[in-house]
Amino acid sequence: MSVKLNDCYLKPFISSSEYEAIAGEIQSALVTTREKSGAGNDFLGWLDLPENFDKKELFDIEEAAKDIRSMCDVLLVIGIGGSYLGARAAVEFVHGPRYNNLKKDTPDIYFVGNDISPSTVSELLSIVEDRQVCLNVISKSGTTTEPAIAFRIFREYMENKYGEEEAAKRIFVTTDRARGKLKELSDAKGYRTFVVPDDIGGRFSVLTPVGLLPIAVSGADVRAMLQGAADARNAFLFEENIEKNDCLKYAAIRNILLRSGKSIEILAGYEPAFAMTCEWWKQLYGESEGKGGNGLYPASVCFTTDLHSLGQFIQDGTALMFETVLDLKTPKAKTVIPYDPANTDGLNYIAGKSMHEVNRVAMQATALAHVDGGVPNLVIELADRSSYSFGYMVYFFELACAVSGYTIGVNPFDQPGVEAYKKNMFALLGKQGSEFDAIRAAIGEKISK
Amino acid sequence: MSVKLNDCYLKPFISSSEYEAIAGEIQSALVTTREKSGAGNDFLGWLDLPENFDKKELFDIEEAAKDIRSMCDVLLVIGIGGSYLGARAAVEFVHGPRYNNLKKDTPDIYFVGNDISPSTVSELLSIVEDRQVCLNVISKSGTTTEPAIAFRIFREYMENKYGEEEAAKRIFVTTDRARGKLKELSDAKGYRTFVVPDDIGGRFSVLTPVGLLPIAVSGADVRAMLQGAADARNAFLFEENIEKNDCLKYAAIRNILLRSGKSIEILAGYEPAFAMTCEWWKQLYGESEGKGGNGLYPASVCFTTDLHSLGQFIQDGTALMFETVLDLKTPKAKTVIPYDPANTDGLNYIAGKSMHEVNRVAMQATALAHVDGGVPNLVIELADRSSYSFGYMVYFFELACAVSGYTIGVNPFDQPGVEAYKKNMFALLGKQGSEFDAIRAAIGEKISK
Repeated sequence: MSVKLNDCYLKPFISSSEYEAIAGEIQSALVTTREKSGAGNDFLGWLDLPENFDKKELFDIEEAAKDIRSMCDVLLVIGIGGSYLGARAAVEFVHGPRYNNLKKDTPDIYFVGNDISPSTVSELLSIVEDRQVCLNVISKSGTTTEPAIAFRIFREYMENKYGEEEAAKRIFVTTDRARGKLKELSDAKGYRTFVVPDDIGGRFSVLTPVGLLPIAVSGADVRAMLQGAADARNAFLFEENIEKNDCLKYAAIRNILLRSGKSIEILAGYEPAFAMTCEWWKQLYGESEGKGGNGLYPASVCFTTDLHSLGQFIQDGTALMFETVLDLKTPKAKTVIPYDPANTDGLNYIAGKSMHEVNRVAMQATALAHVDGGVPNLVIELADRSSYSFGYMVYFFELACAVSGYTIGVNPFDQPGVEAYKKNMFALLGKQGSEFDAIRAAIGEKISK
Repeated sequence: MSVKLNDCYLKPFISSSEYEAIAGEIQSALVTTREKSGAGNDFLGWLDLPENFDKKELFDIEEAAKDIRSMCDVLLVIGIGGSYLGARAAVEFVHGPRYNNLKKDTPDIYFVGNDISPSTVSELLSIVEDRQVCLNVISKSGTTTEPAIAFRIFREYMENKYGEEEAAKRIFVTTDRARGKLKELSDAKGYRTFVVPDDIGGRFSVLTPVGLLPIAVSGADVRAMLQGAADARNAFLFEENIEKNDCLKYAAIRNILLRSGKSIEILAGYEPAFAMTCEWWKQLYGESEGKGGNGLYPASVCFTTDLHSLGQFIQDGTALMFETVLDLKTPKAKTVIPYDPANTDGLNYIAGKSMHEVNRVAMQATALAHVDGGVPNLVIELADRSSYSFGYMVYFFELACAVSGYTIGVNPFDQPGVEAYKKNMFALLGKQGSEFDAIRAAIGEKISK
C-alpha cells in the first residue's frame, strides 16, 4: 500500500457515529462512480485506465521519450490546467523541484503556455538559445488561448531554427484522436501525435499521454506509475466498507468536516517535491467540487517553510480550516545532522539524527499543536517518492474526489464556471461572433455606469 | 506613484456610507501606528527605516555584494520566514522566477535552511559541487532549527572545500548587533556581519540588511528600493483622509469585507514574477492578523495559470473570498503575437497585439466575471517591476498591514502562535529543560489515550 490514511489526530473532532451516519452516502457514491450511473459519467475513462491502457500507445510514448532525450537538451511542454499540472507534479514528485538545475542525462523540462506573461516567453526564448530543443504541445482543441499563443511563437522559433522538416521531427503533439485544428495541422506537418482521450477530463488526465510523455522524458518510470494506479484501483474501487477503504474514508472525512462548518482544506507537505502535487490536487478538488456555491476551498502549504508564515494563522487565526498532511515514509536522501564540538548553535541534541527523522518529528509536533488549536488534522502516508507511489496516489485522490463530489451533490466532472472569464476575454479582445457582440455590449453598459 | 488602488470593481459591494462608517477607525489606526502608541510599538523600526537607513551600512552591503559577485557562481542564502521570503520575493519581482536559469553576470542564488528536507540539502550539495560558493546566513539568534541545521552542514562543506581561512571570507552573517551565538561565532571566525535590527520583526525586515544583501547580489538596485519605500512613506504615512490615501483605503476595504463575512483574501498576480511576492504578502498579513480567532486567511493565485485550476471554485464555489489583483502597468518584455496566414489556431484576431495587452484584457475579463459571480475584486496597480517599485510596494503593504491589524483589534507585530509547534518539536526531539519535560509528559499522555 503506497498510500494509507492515518486518522490518529482526528479523534477529538469526528466520532464513530459520524462515520456511521455518512457511510451509506459514501458507499452509494462509490457504487455510482464504479457503475458509471451518475452525473458526468461520460468522463469516467480514468476509472479503468490503468487496466485498459493501450499497450501500443504506451510503447509509442516510451519510444518518443527516448527520441526526445536523444535529440534535445530542453523539452518545452506547452499546456495549461490539466495539460500542465499533472506532468509537472509527477516530475517534481519523483525528481524534485530543482530538476532543471540538477546534473542529469535527461533534458531540462520547462512548462510554457500556461500563462499570458510576455516575460515567460522571452525568458524561455533566451534559455533555449544555443540549445537543442523539442516541443510537446498538449491541447485537445488546439485553440485554448494560452497554449495556442505559446505554440504560435515556439513553432515559428523551431521552424526558423531548424527548418520546417527538422522542426516537424522535434514537435510532438498530444491532442484529439481525430478532430480539431491541432490534429489537422499535425497531420499536414507530419508531427508525431498522441491522444487526449474523449472520456477523461483535463484534471484526471495525468496518467494518459497528456502527462505520460513529458513524465517519460524526465526518466520517471511510466509503466510503474500505471502499475501503481492499477494497484490502487484494486485496493479502493471494490471495497465498500469505509473502515476498510482509506479512499472512502478520506471522502467521508472531507464531507463530515465540510458539513460541520469547515471552509478550507489545506494540503500540507513537508518536502518541496510535493509543492506541485499540491497544485495538481487543488485543481482536482477545486474544479470538481467548487460549484453551485459549494465546496471546500483547496489551499496548500509547504512545511516547515510555511510554519514561519501561515503557521500563526492556522494555529490561532479564524477557525476556517482542517489540514491534510502528506507524510513521506522513506525519503530520497539520507542527510545526517553533523556533530559540532563547539555546539555554538545548540543543535548537538539532534546531531547524528537524519534530517528526515527531525522533519517527521516536526510534522508530528505541528499536528499536535494545531489539534490543540482546534484544527482537525488527518495524515496521508506516502511510502516513497517512486513513480509507482505517484501513480498510486493519483488514483487514490481521483477516486476519492469522485466519491466526495457525488456526496456533496455536485457533478464532479464538469467545470461550467471557467467559461465566464473566457467569454468576457474573447469579447473584449474583439473576437467575431454574435455571442461576443452581445457580451461586449453588456460590458460596455456596465463600465459606463 | 508606483502603487495605486483601483476600486472600480468594488462598487457593487461597498457603498460610500460603509467607507464613511469605518474612516474614523482607520484614521485612528494610522495615528496609532505613526505615533507608535499602540500594541507592539517596540517593533515599528520599519516605519522610518527608509529615511533613517545607516549610510555606512548601505555602503557595506553594496561592497559585500560586489565581493560576493566577484568570488562566486552560487550564493546560498540560509534563512526562514522573514529571513527568506522578502529577499526571494524581491529577486523574482525584479529578475523573474527563472533567475537562476537565465544567462547573467551575477551569481545564482539558492535559498536553503527554510525547511528540514534532506533532499533540499543533498540537491544543493550536488548543485554547488565544482562551483564557487558564498554563504549568507540570516538568523537573529543563530539557533532557529531550520537555518541552524543548514548552516551546520554548509559551514562544514565550506571549510572542507576552502579551508577555514578562505571559508571565513566567503561566509556573510546577518544577525543581532551584539548578542547571540551566531554573533559570537562570527566574531571568533572573522565573518563579515550585518545587523538584524532589534525593532523590526522578521516579516517587516526585507528592506533591512536581512533582505538587502542577497537582493544586492542579484544586481537589483537597493538604493532605488529604499527610495521607493521612502517615497511611499511620504505618500501614505501622513495623509489621514482615506479617500486620498490608497494605503488607508486598502486597509478599510479589507476590514469592511471581513466584517461583511468574507473569510479569504486571494492575492492574484498575472505574472509568474509575482508568485513569491504573494508568498511574502501571505506571511505579512497572515502572521500579523491571524490571531485570537480572527483575520482573513491569505491565499494567492497565479493567473491565468490558476484560472484553469481554481477559477471554477472562485467563480462558482462557496462564497468565501474576495480578490486583490496585482495589475502590472509596464511589462519587462514586449513579446508580440505573430500573424499566421494559415490561422489554424484561430488566433489571428489577436495577431500583432502584445502579450501584455492580452494579459491585461484577461485580467479585466476575469474581474468582471468574478464580480458577476459575487466575488469582490480590488485592483492594485503596480507601475513596473523595478527595484524602486518593489520598495514602494513593500512600504505600501507594510503600512496597510499595521493599520488593518489595529483596526481588526490585534497586535500586528507579535506571533504568539508559532511557538506551539516548536515547543512540541523540542520536547519530542529530546531537548533538555524542565519546560520540555512537561510537554513530553503531556504529549505522552495524549498519545496513550
